Amino acid sequence: MLLMNLKEIFYMSNVLIFGHLNPDTDAITSAISFAYLQKQLGVEAEAVALGNVSEETAFALNYFNVAAPRLVETVANETNQVMLVDHNEFQQSVSDIRDVEVLAVVDHHRIANFETANPLYYRAEPVGCTNTIILKMYKEQQIAIPKEIAGLMASAIISDSLLFKSPTCTQEDIAAAKELATIAEIDLETYGLDLLKAGTNLADKSAADLLNMDAKSFPMGDKNVRIAQVNTVDINDVFVKQADLEAAMKKEDFDLFILVVTNILDSDSVILAVGEPISAVEKAFDVTLENNKALLKGVVSRKKQVVPQLTEALS
Amino acid sequence: MLLMNLKEIFYMSNVLIFGHLNPDTDAITSAISFAYLQKQLGVEAEAVALGNVSEETAFALNYFNVAAPRLVETVANETNQVMLVDHNEFQQSVSDIRDVEVLAVVDHHRIANFETANPLYYRAEPVGCTNTIILKMYKEQQIAIPKEIAGLMASAIISDSLLFKSPTCTQEDIAAAKELATIAEIDLETYGLDLLKAGTNLADKSAADLLNMDAKSFPMGDKNVRIAQVNTVDINDVFVKQADLEAAMKKEDFDLFILVVTNILDSDSVILAVGEPISAVEKAFDVTLENNKALLKGVVSRKKQVVPQLTEALS
Repeated sequence: MLLMNLKEIFYMSNVLIFGHLNPDTDAITSAISFAYLQKQLGVEAEAVALGNVSEETAFALNYFNVAAPRLVETVANETNQVMLVDHNEFQQSVSDIRDVEVLAVVDHHRIANFETANPLYYRAEPVGCTNTIILKMYKEQQIAIPKEIAGLMASAIISDSLLFKSPTCTQEDIAAAKELATIAEIDLETYGLDLLKAGTNLADKSAADLLNMDAKSFPMGDKNVRIAQVNTVDINDVFVKQADLEAAMKKEDFDLFILVVTNILDSDSVILAVGEPISAVEKAFDVTLENNKALLKGVVSRKKQVVPQLTEALS
Repeated sequence: MLLMNLKEIFYMSNVLIFGHLNPDTDAITSAISFAYLQKQLGVEAEAVALGNVSEETAFALNYFNVAAPRLVETVANETNQVMLVDHNEFQQSVSDIRDVEVLAVVDHHRIANFETANPLYYRAEPVGCTNTIILKMYKEQQIAIPKEIAGLMASAIISDSLLFKSPTCTQEDIAAAKELATIAEIDLETYGLDLLKAGTNLADKSAADLLNMDAKSFPMGDKNVRIAQVNTVDINDVFVKQADLEAAMKKEDFDLFILVVTNILDSDSVILAVGEPISAVEKAFDVTLENNKALLKGVVSRKKQVVPQLTEALS
């Protein structure tokens, strides 16, 4: 009976909504936009974040005058019900995800390392951005989108698609961004380039900072792989720190650590790879690493152009 | 290049859509209703089945004059793309599910033992029936539902909810059934009882037949558990075969085999349990087995009233 009373108290706590660890602009803003939608539907929801916002995300939040979500390290201490946005794999989520009930997921990634004990809401579509799906859900529920939320949602689509240049970008994402830009009263090209450039200010970043800006872990075969990505307008800005980067990558507890440095102006990437098996990296991308680096022409998407290829090479 | 050409040929093959092994009425009819929707959206889709239709399902197909889906044992021999309805767990799916790409899932169960290499459409909601979700998708896409498809969809909701008596049944399921019954021109109560009774003709069933009518496997902790369910209007019709049932259950390669015999008139069940650990079964349902049996008052739903309780007891 005491247990039941405690449970009732817990159920009255807020439902926490969050994106993945090392949050990018979509992870942060989809938590905000989905929490707003849930609140309109009567759910006591709060957007939180599993990491500090990037400079790109900070630019968007500042532009639309929205506060960054509260930072949390664990969730089971304050709620027993959560909703996930922009991720599902438990190793990319909060450390105590297995101690709470996942009520809903909105995502645009593969599904893996995810399971629940009970039925739930799960909405995934193979589009370029979580906020493209959330826009659809607003329309289905006939909920109006406030200007500042629309601006954050458009920012996420610009960010995830590198202003529509990524192969992950679909016609639905472009249409969604245009619709949201109208509500937010922004010019997509002008605002978009300013947003992306805000995320490429790498000069004052340490090697550890660079490796943590947008990093995700993936079990592949029997290997534990870390893939970090940074966007820049000059790839050399990153590789002047190559020695420091390699030292920091070797210190981490992964079999293989890959840093993808993406030039957002010419849409190519250079990868830096540390660990084993390097042969799988060379096979995955059909390149030969020189000084641990290789140019991947036309590669900008970790999800479509790095993870599947490496997963196959390691399986 | 040859590989690419082969791939293009494969991609022109039909997308196969199917429900779980040992299909019930929702598994069969949601494949039919989702395939019809996909075809209207331009996808070359075909509903198939992973097992013979039950007498209940046959009643519905016959009433609405729809042919049973083609039976398949494997899929990779004829397609490389599939869509799953009414299930996601691989052990409940086709044996070569790992050899094909899952493009979409529509389901109302927990998510477990499921993973993809690529992003996909996934639509799950915690409602009582897959067809309740599919009705929503027809409306979102503004596709009209033919009378016979509506009849099959209503049949699935009646079947999964035991005419709205199951705790899995939501207000959305009831509203969906009423809407579909109008299109199908049936009286829910009259047609519904006829449908359910068609599934309770157990007299000529062998023990093996009874155990296979609606059986699903679940990994729970380190145990492999099989849970079969049959509906009846007289529980004794099943237990006159108790010795045969136990012999057949012991022959199967599961740690624990539970048969749930549900009386659809009074909404109680009697379980028969064989294997180990029996103590977990007794703990899960707070009962003492006598002669391997126990009455579970008010239990009709495997999903809500059997699987979670047993999962917890075995974890």
